[in-house]
Amino acid sequence: MSLNNIRIVMINTSHPGNIGAAARVMKNMGLTRLYLVNPKQFPNYEATAMASGADDLLSQAIVCSSFEEALEGCRLVLGTTARERKIQHEFVNARDAGVLSISESQQHEVALVFGRERTGLTNDEIGLCHKLINIPTNPDYSSLNVASAVQIVSYEVMMSLHLLNQENVGLNANQNELDTEESADYASSENMERFYEHLQQTLIEIDFLHLEQSPQLMPKLRHIYNRIRLKQEELNILRGILSKTQKLK
Amino acid sequence: MSLNNIRIVMINTSHPGNIGAAARVMKNMGLTRLYLVNPKQFPNYEATAMASGADDLLSQAIVCSSFEEALEGCRLVLGTTARERKIQHEFVNARDAGVLSISESQQHEVALVFGRERTGLTNDEIGLCHKLINIPTNPDYSSLNVASAVQIVSYEVMMSLHLLNQENVGLNANQNELDTEESADYASSENMERFYEHLQQTLIEIDFLHLEQSPQLMPKLRHIYNRIRLKQEELNILRGILSKTQKLK
Repeated sequence: MSLNNIRIVMINTSHPGNIGAAARVMKNMGLTRLYLVNPKQFPNYEATAMASGADDLLSQAIVCSSFEEALEGCRLVLGTTARERKIQHEFVNARDAGVLSISESQQHEVALVFGRERTGLTNDEIGLCHKLINIPTNPDYSSLNVASAVQIVSYEVMMSLHLLNQENVGLNANQNELDTEESADYASSENMERFYEHLQQTLIEIDFLHLEQSPQLMPKLRHIYNRIRLKQEELNILRGILSKTQKLK
Repeated sequence: MSLNNIRIVMINTSHPGNIGAAARVMKNMGLTRLYLVNPKQFPNYEATAMASGADDLLSQAIVCSSFEEALEGCRLVLGTTARERKIQHEFVNARDAGVLSISESQQHEVALVFGRERTGLTNDEIGLCHKLINIPTNPDYSSLNVASAVQIVSYEVMMSLHLLNQENVGLNANQNELDTEESADYASSENMERFYEHLQQTLIEIDFLHLEQSPQLMPKLRHIYNRIRLKQEELNILRGILSKTQKLK
């Protein structure tokens, strides 16, 4: 399963720093294909500085002279809007956009589209999008930086892939082996019982516990330590403390 | 339902621009409370420039001289790590961290913690976190900018609130009251710290702990007890045992 069929399209970006920042967050999230429709300044040193190690994405970026050109070959086009406008269009949230992008990109090319810093997408551009992505924000301060929007949508794409991979791995028998290895060093129930006996004995010896007066103390302590799922190594430390305490008497 | 009980804690941030960028993305996502532990340069014009309209968050930011100070009053502390290290700690992904933050912040204070740009959180700092947040990234380019990490986690908090508001219809008032009673009595970070001091002092007195010979013992014990999320009542029992043990000497 790969992210090669997903492209990020940035339209008419004013600040080259935003292009660089977008490239960086794309690469963090495993996306590599950046399309720039009439960027104001590109290539540009500010873009390169902000890309911080993702300059390979910038050098491979495809500069287009029209939005249509940037969408060539795409069968799913999702546009991002700052807020829900009064337009008749189907909206999805960023999370669903991530899921949709991953599932559809297995069959065909998907474009995730980001508009101008100040004015977003024009109505004509919205007309070319199959759905619009809405990112929930603070209504009193909703203007997301364009690179932040790229960040969030790219993250949701990565997260969708990540969860899908986890599900696939879960179906795989090898996972069981891994789980077994992982949990091999948890203390066994028998050893937990020995610990509780040791704890009770110590508390009686140091005169903290009088079973008849406080029948609830041991159940409470069990409730504390049962919640942890102690490793055997940790249990050994606790029992070491008990043994040392017993010697004080 | 509000986000007022959730604070973002940034530790030892080197670049003031990252603090400003974090403030901006926080405000976009409805978060307002920023705690800065020993920032390298703050206040600073670069922070203000990057905040771009979120400078109110910067002027209200609380500068602390220790991580413990920044956690005062918090009953859930989630730390962010760049990748899963070989440490024994409970991990949650950013999405689950958002859900957890929203649900717990209805009862008590929650801290979302972000480490240094290059080196993240120290092991001691991790020891103060109940869980660690893992953000899935491209394994070949996994170093997330700290403001990007703040962005993603803040977005997940906002998204969780957003989805909850959508589902709001099903919320039962009685259930809310029950939940409040249930979790209101978790021990605070300060009381946990007092417990660890008491534990350390007792182990030294009973000659079990020699700090120079076993520097790893207290971190291991912290790791055990932090996993439990002790109630105050339970903490009182454990401290009672410690006091009794001290009297044996």
